Amino acid sequence: MPEALDRIRIVLVATSHPGNIGAAARAMRTMGLTRLVLVNPRKFPDPEATALASGATAVLDGAQVVGSIDEALEGCVLAVGLSARPREFAGRVLPVRAAAAAAIASAPRGDIGFVFGTEISGLSNAELARCGTVATIPANADYASLNVAAAVQLMAYELRVAALGDAVWTAPRFAPATHDEIEALHAHGRQTLAAMRFLDPRRPKRLLPRLRRLFARADLEKEEVNILRGILARIDELIARGPRR
Amino acid sequence: MPEALDRIRIVLVATSHPGNIGAAARAMRTMGLTRLVLVNPRKFPDPEATALASGATAVLDGAQVVGSIDEALEGCVLAVGLSARPREFAGRVLPVRAAAAAAIASAPRGDIGFVFGTEISGLSNAELARCGTVATIPANADYASLNVAAAVQLMAYELRVAALGDAVWTAPRFAPATHDEIEALHAHGRQTLAAMRFLDPRRPKRLLPRLRRLFARADLEKEEVNILRGILARIDELIARGPRR
Repeated sequence: MPEALDRIRIVLVATSHPGNIGAAARAMRTMGLTRLVLVNPRKFPDPEATALASGATAVLDGAQVVGSIDEALEGCVLAVGLSARPREFAGRVLPVRAAAAAAIASAPRGDIGFVFGTEISGLSNAELARCGTVATIPANADYASLNVAAAVQLMAYELRVAALGDAVWTAPRFAPATHDEIEALHAHGRQTLAAMRFLDPRRPKRLLPRLRRLFARADLEKEEVNILRGILARIDELIARGPRR
Repeated sequence: MPEALDRIRIVLVATSHPGNIGAAARAMRTMGLTRLVLVNPRKFPDPEATALASGATAVLDGAQVVGSIDEALEGCVLAVGLSARPREFAGRVLPVRAAAAAAIASAPRGDIGFVFGTEISGLSNAELARCGTVATIPANADYASLNVAAAVQLMAYELRVAALGDAVWTAPRFAPATHDEIEALHAHGRQTLAAMRFLDPRRPKRLLPRLRRLFARADLEKEEVNILRGILARIDELIARGPRR
């Protein structure tokens, strides 16, 4: 559901440092979020916000500046406030992962707002009370204070994973070796190791099974088998040439 | 396994801006990571690093400065390089969540290094080749460039969740109302609504079932039932007093 991410509003309340607004915009863009709402920012627009947005200026340019949390959340079907501190009157409290899943599940019904407080003290109790759900980041109890842009980054990441999964690019795979190619490699190896007198065929011990185990885990490709057989063939040649005088 | 987090080394390679080193240290501390290794930082120590570490100066003070990735990874049983870009010769490629799980699973056997490249270009192919595993952050393909401290924040978060789960503080719960208290509330409500002439007992329609459904979802507490019955009792009084002249 990529369109689910278009339903997400990131709401920053009374942010003091414009650099944090820029960094939050950058964090949003890395995860495909676009809708930023600023409630009474101290300074905005500001060159420091633009500098730290680093390529995510479209998010900043589209940012909506409003005068209250209620205005920021108008029309939202779900409002989620971020808080590190436990609060006495919190309703539903979820870790960010579960909050992201709940938000994406609600997205077909309308917009969802995620509300972040000030750098120093987060959201006040009254502000948090506007949010039916509290999301919290599992953090070090001795030092739970994430930078506001870092908190936006984590929340946006969890929203993206909830909406789209966490599939990433995969390592390139070349043509796999076939069973018979691999068996021919083992036979060649056995022969060469014996010719090298590294293996005593009458007392092979665990050498061959250990090598088989290693190559089994490596999931050999056709070209890799060719390289290894090339090395073996070169050793065979050296042995055939006999010891140097 | 909290001790698993002590096995994690965060390795920053050739970081240009000391502020990013500070922000990375802060990100580490929020997630309970302590071991920072800097490979050829351009400027360190530096007042900007200290400023952005914001309380995580112990992580900075304990940082080890080394001259190569191999030195940074010495003794590690698993080396994980972070990369946004697909690479042709990557071995195992995992999303950060799976990489965190793999690292925590390996922690009983020794140290694990997570390697982050420069701000501009990330890790080179040669640097990434030192890492048996590549971890990648699922991000917006059009703009995947996370700030290095933001990448450290996400990785550290996933490591913490992998090691300790994502249990967070829970909303406080007060004594729940009992079945009979709730039934008494409904009976009282029915009576008062009828006295108010909001409900016609001969044609109740769907009013009472709708109210029952609402209160069922709310999972009422004893004190909440008392508050609601107090409101009903006050309405009863107003009705008993009769209309004003």
